[in-house]
Amino acid sequence: MDFTEIIGFSAAILTTAAFLPQVYKTWKTKDVSGLSLPMLLMFFIGVFLWLVYGFYKESPSMVSANAITVVSAFFLLYFKIKYSKK
Amino acid sequence: MDFTEIIGFSAAILTTAAFLPQVYKTWKTKDVSGLSLPMLLMFFIGVFLWLVYGFYKESPSMVSANAITVVSAFFLLYFKIKYSKK
Repeated sequence: MDFTEIIGFSAAILTTAAFLPQVYKTWKTKDVSGLSLPMLLMFFIGVFLWLVYGFYKESPSMVSANAITVVSAFFLLYFKIKYSKK
Repeated sequence: MDFTEIIGFSAAILTTAAFLPQVYKTWKTKDVSGLSLPMLLMFFIGVFLWLVYGFYKESPSMVSANAITVVSAFFLLYFKIKYSKK
């Protein structure tokens, strides 16, 4: 693995790991009051586009990071829609 | 601008814009109880590494997005340390 990808994967691990506790916390507490639906939608679409961009740039670290984050963002969006109805 | 960068800048606008309301909200409310210091540190270092990675990959959209987000992350980190002391 080259130096650039070592930096990329270090970045990927840090930003992905920083995001997971939010997903876990929302899943456990079902407290979605602090989450904004438009913000989550923007974020989900944005991360999906970064994933596509990562493929075009042939970047393994970007594809890995955004593949995980797009799933996390999907869950947050799902929780927001599901728990806001109650 | 080529097609890849159009996707990249669309992603950059969406994920950057989704993050700014959090910074604004924390600045106005000074409520940092829901923010975790280790998470903010990881995120800040991670975004900084994505910025470096964007330079290596010669990606204008990654550099722009992460330059803005690293400043946002820095402010959140600063607010967390400043307002946690009170």
